[in-house]
Amino acid sequence: MVEGKYSETIQAEGHLIDSQHLNHIFDKVIERGAVYEVLRFDIGKTNDDVSFIQLKLTANSPEILRELLKELVPFGAQLVDQRDARFEAAVKDRCVPHDFYSTTNHRTQIRKGGRWIEVEHQRMDAVVVDEGERVVCRKLRDVARGDQVMCGVEGVRVVPEYRERDRHGFAFMSNDISSERRVEVSVAKVAKMMHEVRAAGGKIAFVAGPVVIHTGGIDYFCDLVRKGWVDVLLTGNALPVHDIEYALYGTSLGVDLQTGSPVEEGHKNHMRAINVISHAGSIAEAVKQGVLKQGIMHDCVKHDVSFVLAGSIRDDGPLPDTLMDLIEAQEAYARALEGCKMVVMLSTMLHSIGVGNMLPSWVRVVCVDINPAVVTKLADRGSAQTLGVVTDVGLFLHQLASKLEPCARK
Amino acid sequence: MVEGKYSETIQAEGHLIDSQHLNHIFDKVIERGAVYEVLRFDIGKTNDDVSFIQLKLTANSPEILRELLKELVPFGAQLVDQRDARFEAAVKDRCVPHDFYSTTNHRTQIRKGGRWIEVEHQRMDAVVVDEGERVVCRKLRDVARGDQVMCGVEGVRVVPEYRERDRHGFAFMSNDISSERRVEVSVAKVAKMMHEVRAAGGKIAFVAGPVVIHTGGIDYFCDLVRKGWVDVLLTGNALPVHDIEYALYGTSLGVDLQTGSPVEEGHKNHMRAINVISHAGSIAEAVKQGVLKQGIMHDCVKHDVSFVLAGSIRDDGPLPDTLMDLIEAQEAYARALEGCKMVVMLSTMLHSIGVGNMLPSWVRVVCVDINPAVVTKLADRGSAQTLGVVTDVGLFLHQLASKLEPCARK
Amino acid sequence: MVEGKYSETIQAEGHLIDSQHLNHIFDKVIERGAVYEVLRFDIGKTNDDVSFIQLKLTANSPEILRELLKELVPFGAQLVDQRDARFEAAVKDRCVPHDFYSTTNHRTQIRKGGRWIEVEHQRMDAVVVDEGERVVCRKLRDVARGDQVMCGVEGVRVVPEYRERDRHGFAFMSNDISSERRVEVSVAKVAKMMHEVRAAGGKIAFVAGPVVIHTGGIDYFCDLVRKGWVDVLLTGNALPVHDIEYALYGTSLGVDLQTGSPVEEGHKNHMRAINVISHAGSIAEAVKQGVLKQGIMHDCVKHDVSFVLAGSIRDDGPLPDTLMDLIEAQEAYARALEGCKMVVMLSTMLHSIGVGNMLPSWVRVVCVDINPAVVTKLADRGSAQTLGVVTDVGLFLHQLASKLEPCARK
Amino acid sequence: MVEGKYSETIQAEGHLIDSQHLNHIFDKVIERGAVYEVLRFDIGKTNDDVSFIQLKLTANSPEILRELLKELVPFGAQLVDQRDARFEAAVKDRCVPHDFYSTTNHRTQIRKGGRWIEVEHQRMDAVVVDEGERVVCRKLRDVARGDQVMCGVEGVRVVPEYRERDRHGFAFMSNDISSERRVEVSVAKVAKMMHEVRAAGGKIAFVAGPVVIHTGGIDYFCDLVRKGWVDVLLTGNALPVHDIEYALYGTSLGVDLQTGSPVEEGHKNHMRAINVISHAGSIAEAVKQGVLKQGIMHDCVKHDVSFVLAGSIRDDGPLPDTLMDLIEAQEAYARALEGCKMVVMLSTMLHSIGVGNMLPSWVRVVCVDINPAVVTKLADRGSAQTLGVVTDVGLFLHQLASKLEPCARK
Repeated sequence: MVEGKYSETIQAEGHLIDSQHLNHIFDKVIERGAVYEVLRFDIGKTNDDVSFIQLKLTANSPEILRELLKELVPFGAQLVDQRDARFEAAVKDRCVPHDFYSTTNHRTQIRKGGRWIEVEHQRMDAVVVDEGERVVCRKLRDVARGDQVMCGVEGVRVVPEYRERDRHGFAFMSNDISSERRVEVSVAKVAKMMHEVRAAGGKIAFVAGPVVIHTGGIDYFCDLVRKGWVDVLLTGNALPVHDIEYALYGTSLGVDLQTGSPVEEGHKNHMRAINVISHAGSIAEAVKQGVLKQGIMHDCVKHDVSFVLAGSIRDDGPLPDTLMDLIEAQEAYARALEGCKMVVMLSTMLHSIGVGNMLPSWVRVVCVDINPAVVTKLADRGSAQTLGVVTDVGLFLHQLASKLEPCARK
Repeated sequence: MVEGKYSETIQAEGHLIDSQHLNHIFDKVIERGAVYEVLRFDIGKTNDDVSFIQLKLTANSPEILRELLKELVPFGAQLVDQRDARFEAAVKDRCVPHDFYSTTNHRTQIRKGGRWIEVEHQRMDAVVVDEGERVVCRKLRDVARGDQVMCGVEGVRVVPEYRERDRHGFAFMSNDISSERRVEVSVAKVAKMMHEVRAAGGKIAFVAGPVVIHTGGIDYFCDLVRKGWVDVLLTGNALPVHDIEYALYGTSLGVDLQTGSPVEEGHKNHMRAINVISHAGSIAEAVKQGVLKQGIMHDCVKHDVSFVLAGSIRDDGPLPDTLMDLIEAQEAYARALEGCKMVVMLSTMLHSIGVGNMLPSWVRVVCVDINPAVVTKLADRGSAQTLGVVTDVGLFLHQLASKLEPCARK
Repeated sequence: MVEGKYSETIQAEGHLIDSQHLNHIFDKVIERGAVYEVLRFDIGKTNDDVSFIQLKLTANSPEILRELLKELVPFGAQLVDQRDARFEAAVKDRCVPHDFYSTTNHRTQIRKGGRWIEVEHQRMDAVVVDEGERVVCRKLRDVARGDQVMCGVEGVRVVPEYRERDRHGFAFMSNDISSERRVEVSVAKVAKMMHEVRAAGGKIAFVAGPVVIHTGGIDYFCDLVRKGWVDVLLTGNALPVHDIEYALYGTSLGVDLQTGSPVEEGHKNHMRAINVISHAGSIAEAVKQGVLKQGIMHDCVKHDVSFVLAGSIRDDGPLPDTLMDLIEAQEAYARALEGCKMVVMLSTMLHSIGVGNMLPSWVRVVCVDINPAVVTKLADRGSAQTLGVVTDVGLFLHQLASKLEPCARK
Repeated sequence: MVEGKYSETIQAEGHLIDSQHLNHIFDKVIERGAVYEVLRFDIGKTNDDVSFIQLKLTANSPEILRELLKELVPFGAQLVDQRDARFEAAVKDRCVPHDFYSTTNHRTQIRKGGRWIEVEHQRMDAVVVDEGERVVCRKLRDVARGDQVMCGVEGVRVVPEYRERDRHGFAFMSNDISSERRVEVSVAKVAKMMHEVRAAGGKIAFVAGPVVIHTGGIDYFCDLVRKGWVDVLLTGNALPVHDIEYALYGTSLGVDLQTGSPVEEGHKNHMRAINVISHAGSIAEAVKQGVLKQGIMHDCVKHDVSFVLAGSIRDDGPLPDTLMDLIEAQEAYARALEGCKMVVMLSTMLHSIGVGNMLPSWVRVVCVDINPAVVTKLADRGSAQTLGVVTDVGLFLHQLASKLEPCARK
């Protein structure tokens, strides 16, 4: 059917079958209307052995072939005929050549002067800039005129994380999301993951939304903070507002405690809470002045957990700590995530996607939400190590806190 | 706009405002294109006082007026001009006069010979049959030729349950369903309700689906059984099959325990489980023979909890205990529900709706499901006392079992 | 880790990579704690070539090895060392030997006297019975004492449907379910599938729930019936009741048409509708007598579309046509499905799962529901050809009806 | 039970029963543990007459009574004993007295010098500032030291919108959200609402998310733009990126058109699209330069539809037009909404809540989403005129565009 005359030969190595990379490679070729011929395939003899494949790809236009090659890079494919990467100068700020290489979140190497160099600050949807000694990921908006930007697909290779079958005693579940699961099993996995990350010297970040408050998670989250399991809290304006509102008014007025219902539009305590913090100057000041005496934000301040509050278009107030300049907020998030080897996302799609975009694929991610569609969406975007848990967030935190002993913070 | 010449005067008494019955009455009048005039309205001076209203309704055809009157009966409205109820004979089996009165699930009284008599076996979507001494609800399919079937709206009055504002220390939540709630508060309410029902001599039924098994609820449900809180278990074929499969194969093969995943199509253990019970003859026999040694069904047998398994079109096997004749199954359900003053519905829309149809409105109902749409649907159909809880069923049972001490069974 | 001494060698052939069967085989081996060694692997050189694999499996108990082999059969694996299938007699009705072979919905062959014979009446969760000339699938409950039932995994091979990458110009989407899709693309695929099935002489069945009525699908479904695209309608009691209620009362009383809201508990027209059909004797009789003049059920009667109404525990009434004996209902469904090569499932999980259980995997299935969890659940159980569409059912039918011209019924 | 000694008398007038305001007032009193006594109640004799109530409230602390009075203001309650509003000076920027009055989105009047004055720029969660001639809503963050801020509940009255029963031929549905509805009925209502708004000289704003693109809504939305029905488009970064990506690459590469699937992580065309617009300088420049030739953003530029793109923490790029400073973005949204009398929200909870916070309650709002939980959440926050539609957004736009003729833009 295809009268292709344009060909390239690629190769890939790794756990090609269990990671489904081989399958994705074949799928992409067919989607593009190209054809492949397997030149060589060495299958791993056992579960621990890697496989190797060499494929000749043929398309009937050089553009299609080029697009196809770009699409195969994330699955570990590289040209057999190795060349150095090609860099071109950005002609103005924030603008790159049309043929720029857009990164994945996987470990990436660039060939320069015949040598393979690892790209630094790996994240997805960035460009790769040659800084002489180093090659680094840079966001499009941070590109300056004259930056040397990598173009094309020559001289790049990606080492995708393998969605492997429990090769290191760790079961991945991202294809296996359902509310009809035993949560206790997932909690045990998460607790184990947290221990492993800490043992390896990694930090643990939590990305959390106000549902943590509404579902009764305050005490359990505070317990995690006090036991030393939370290094970073990334959230928006709503969680701290509701947490502080609850700390200031929850027990005296008592409505929420008795009915279990957040009265969102009701008596405007959230505006009063913001006003109290504005008077104090900041959350930390309110704690220092003895105005704020309990709750998640209080405990974060007391236990030196760094937190970043990123604003959104829906925020009223906001708290004086909330960053309404998103460039600043994204950078503060990224800095806070440095050194984090695990991120637990609790019922906030917005901030979770924001964080997911910043992470290299080797950071472990856990997504918890009562809505299976949210968990699926986050797991789809994330790295191969994503563990999705569909359940009530308050009860999840209850279980998790009861499974974890106090530990030394990093 | 309406040139109505056909009028009737109705009245209603009760907590008309907080139950929203007055509102519903007005809505129905407007929907029908009729008009109302308030002849008299006495509002309750305090929260404990009842209100009284008298309304003149005018429509521009006698049919519309008649339909409208029928629609107002469930909200407690009755004709001011009191007449005896009218009965007509069924001309053949399963067939009633076109003008038959179709019941609600609320307490209903019929005027016969100038006296108001309470209808027995109250349930919804039934007809009312005059049996001389008694008037009773009868399902359409059970109507026999010659039965005296109540027609029209004369001589009937309904005493709806009030969705009242915590007049007896009991908070109703059916309009207030969300996954963003603190489950612990709901669990405490359910536990309190169970204590109250028991204290009043009522039985407690559970309607449960296989999600109880998949979410890890077996141990907690068994705990409730052993502590004496389960009088009746109404379910289908899937819960017992998965429970027995788990009891027989769960620990030895171990896959499920380690991964938390039900392997539905996998190794066909559910067919093996059915086969084992078929060999024994029944679930009770399997327990007696020592073949079935643990799990929900085992504990029900050991603790004399009566259970009814109603088949469905999706059932394979089924177990020898599963009733595939639905007439028989509905009657067995109805018999098992006699004396039950509370029903807890756990993640099975099908059986829950089936049970809901059979219950008078004064039986308390709790619906638990992780999908808010299911809880809303069940709460909408149910009685005013329905409490909806959106959460993980396994974790809910965990919490509930830990809140309840052993008690004496009825 | 595994000190395995028990080994068998298996082989499989087909589109092993794109169908993910190879991956599933490896997964199962690891899950069981066994090990594999690839003895031979020939990869298909191009997308049209099949692959072939030979694997040595080793486990540390004969039971684990046996269980593992059973689990690999559905992916096309068979023992290299070919033996005849083994049959044992059932010792009593409905009971089979513990080691029985439980079927998949894929094409299956049994080795008898050295010859491979195709199993008849293929369906899942059945046993295979030797009838001399033929080997057939039989439901557990239909097994009679003395029936020769296949046991073990020797002498069986399964030919799974391939979830292939558009090898025949047909894109499968079952792993790709989301509400964020362009429905028009899916509708075009479904219409194309319907044309292909008809061109090949196949019948088309629809499994539909009452949501078809509530979302305004009556006219469009009737259009499909009149254009000749519906051979069989499988449903429960609710769809015909609501359809008939609408046909009888929808336009005169008019509430629903104006508000778009089904008034489920409201004026009890559904009980009146059932009563009208009971008077007539059946739906067909009501059409004949001129009582029922429009709607889906009317059009089915007029255009000789066979329909089967299977009861459920939630059904009131029911209509005289509704089968309340589920054994009878399942058999009527199965008979109606004979010759159907395509099934369109519209918003009814219960009946759809029931139908899915009866179908061999080569029947094409389309699932339409506004709830992604339902589509995922159905697609997971179904055959490889399942196409899932997450959308509004009424609008889907609108689009589908407008895409299809009248055609000759089979 | 309550030993209350603190009392106030309030009154309210309006459609108190059908709007449920009376019910809400009673509920709040009971929730607070206070008691009420009805001093006077005049019920509207017909559906068009208003009702009037006077209530004596008694609580056992002055704080509870004060809180309760604040909570009753949104339902139209005011003190019988009329006093002027009390203003206090803000002691520093962004900080108000603790007893400040927090606004609702309803029409509000303030008593000053014995005269009732209408508050300007009505929106919720604001404070009321006395500017001498005028009293205005001001956001907390915009309060400057010395501003005269209204405190307490004296001298304020709110005129809530009535959730009335079709008094002006308009059926409200916000309590009546379900996917089991006939969408065509809802579309007809929306179209009618759009005609009415235009006839009254109002503008129409659309708040839209990228699901509009993914579900195939581009052509239909463009149709609405070209027909003159869209005055303002409020969105984020994702909709324009995907729209432009589709305009630039959708047809040539063609993958999406054939499969109906957005390949979000795939070939990075969204980064290419951003780069193209960055080269041009802005979306409008790209249209002018002939680089961008079709799609929603193109049509908005060509037809002078004003659009505002508000950034979020998840945005990559972003487009040069996207506002990453949220203070600026919120102000741009608010300016764009001036003169809008109707807002249609299409599948974006984030931006929809942001817009909802800015609107006075008399702006009509329509929310469309396939997820019922989103529609419920938006409807709950919104004004009484909110119409919720649970359906596929692409198909909704298809239906809506086909129902509307070209019209003159305001």
